[in-house]
Amino acid sequence: MPTDPVLTGPVEVIGTGLLGTSVALACRRAGLEVLLSDVSPQHVRTASGLGAGRPRVAGDRPQLVVVAVPPALLGPVIASALDASDAVVTDVGSVKAAPLAALAGHDAGRYVGGHPMAGSERSGPLAASDVLFDGRPWAVTPHPASDPAAIALVEQLVEVCGGVALRLTPDEHDRAVARTSHVPHLMAALVAARLADAPEGHLALSGQGVRDVTRVAAGDPRLYGQIVAGNAGAVTELLSQVRAQLDDLITAVSAGDTARLADVLEQGVAGTRAIPGKHGGVPTPTTSVYVAVPDAPGNLARLFADAGASGVNIEDVRIDHDPGRQVGVMELVVASDMAEQLWTSLESKDWVTHR
Amino acid sequence: MPTDPVLTGPVEVIGTGLLGTSVALACRRAGLEVLLSDVSPQHVRTASGLGAGRPRVAGDRPQLVVVAVPPALLGPVIASALDASDAVVTDVGSVKAAPLAALAGHDAGRYVGGHPMAGSERSGPLAASDVLFDGRPWAVTPHPASDPAAIALVEQLVEVCGGVALRLTPDEHDRAVARTSHVPHLMAALVAARLADAPEGHLALSGQGVRDVTRVAAGDPRLYGQIVAGNAGAVTELLSQVRAQLDDLITAVSAGDTARLADVLEQGVAGTRAIPGKHGGVPTPTTSVYVAVPDAPGNLARLFADAGASGVNIEDVRIDHDPGRQVGVMELVVASDMAEQLWTSLESKDWVTHR
Repeated sequence: MPTDPVLTGPVEVIGTGLLGTSVALACRRAGLEVLLSDVSPQHVRTASGLGAGRPRVAGDRPQLVVVAVPPALLGPVIASALDASDAVVTDVGSVKAAPLAALAGHDAGRYVGGHPMAGSERSGPLAASDVLFDGRPWAVTPHPASDPAAIALVEQLVEVCGGVALRLTPDEHDRAVARTSHVPHLMAALVAARLADAPEGHLALSGQGVRDVTRVAAGDPRLYGQIVAGNAGAVTELLSQVRAQLDDLITAVSAGDTARLADVLEQGVAGTRAIPGKHGGVPTPTTSVYVAVPDAPGNLARLFADAGASGVNIEDVRIDHDPGRQVGVMELVVASDMAEQLWTSLESKDWVTHR
Repeated sequence: MPTDPVLTGPVEVIGTGLLGTSVALACRRAGLEVLLSDVSPQHVRTASGLGAGRPRVAGDRPQLVVVAVPPALLGPVIASALDASDAVVTDVGSVKAAPLAALAGHDAGRYVGGHPMAGSERSGPLAASDVLFDGRPWAVTPHPASDPAAIALVEQLVEVCGGVALRLTPDEHDRAVARTSHVPHLMAALVAARLADAPEGHLALSGQGVRDVTRVAAGDPRLYGQIVAGNAGAVTELLSQVRAQLDDLITAVSAGDTARLADVLEQGVAGTRAIPGKHGGVPTPTTSVYVAVPDAPGNLARLFADAGASGVNIEDVRIDHDPGRQVGVMELVVASDMAEQLWTSLESKDWVTHR
């Protein structure tokens, strides 16, 4: 029985944007040699200047190639990477079945797909970080013909980057992200599109809810267009389910059928509870402590300092940003049995709070 | 020309839940006498114990009645309040046309609707606060037969509560909140409903995006059902627009029509930009500073203290809660020209940051 290969490098990164450069930085942190390629020599120089590796030159022999190019280019770039050397090849693209389908006629046994659940609203090498993947789920998606040794090497890359490998088939992956990412994004865009044509003044009534629902819709339309187009099958199937339930909802609302309306809303509540909690565990009961923060420089900083001094571990924070508001409300989420301590501590420092 | 009446009280609050008790506390803060009524004597005792006023007794003569009951009861309770005295009557309900329609045959000139854009995930008098409305938009929705003096009195109430009055007709209001609140809530529920029936393991790939999109769908289905049912016309009209665009989207995705797909996504981007910025003004350019926070008690508190000591005003904060993550990522949003100062200050205290 052959032993698994050990990731010793060099690792070649093709595409030195946010994700590629972050992978390169994480590999460098682990002491691996990294070779950089990009259609933009400027990006390679920038990434190289950040300490992400050196430009690849003729004669370099990578052990592992990481393809980090835009979704529409994944198939051809993975194929040419397979043809260019005998290295194992992986990628960090958001869809997995479509690029695989482009590999017919190439030595695809050396290819194992990957998709780290990490990103940023920023892009390019300057936004990269060697901690971008720390503790993040990272889908590893072998296909039936993938070499076990290639799978092992890609899972070592995930470990080097600090990620948590989750093994899925390419199809499973694509159906999962259609549900957890692509369809939520498209629905957010549909809600946001209704705001774009709102009558004068109506959006002054916008609260935190609509901001949350639509936030992801601010993402780069070209990138998301490519991602969705690359996962058309799974996305269409789910959108059709949404459409069927939307029809139901329209009928229920227009007919005043409150039982059917309640049924949809109950399913929504159940769905929000199905999302794994922090660390994938059962969510612990939390309580929100609301603090009024006059909108002047330094107040939020002072609140942070006072909350820090309370000794209570803050689980989550939110700031309410309603228009016209000169006093913001900061929401501090803490374990329910610690709320009283935080509240007492902040009140003693003259913060106005409510629970 | 008659001078406007001055709000001198007593103010009667009918319904001592979160909103009613908060209105009562704000009125007490301003020195007004407050009379409390509720079908639950326990709620009245609790609110009274919080200093929100005293139980209403026979013979009391309120100057202004604030109706703060569940949406389905608004019409009848407003009607009986109009019949019970010659006081001006307002309410704090989420829909405005439906209760008004229930007032035919009553002295509706003394009624002026209202809707503060404030709330909490909690409910009941114990969640109330006299600062709940500080700086919040508060729709004031006179109808054509409303007395100008009644409108003036209700706008004084908004001022006493610290809110910012926005005058809209009842229909305009309902169309505005259908767009900014009810339809986003329903769409979030449709996305969340797809999570409820996800195959085993698929939700492990959930990131911050789907959490944001679906968060409001966790709200009380009974309350939201009543709100949506009370605004059926405006909600149905917008849902039909969403359905038409969803049909378009399904056709575009399944046909690989990337131009039509991009068109929907571009409209989404435009919509997110149409939401008013903080204080309703033009958003100032901001930069996010990301900080890795090991998930152990006290670390977030220490980060708050260190960020506070940096002297940089923090505009917004977010915590990334991906499953499996033992290191959280805190996003601190600051004015772009202050990012360097925050970054340098945190790095000097050994925080691992990226931008």
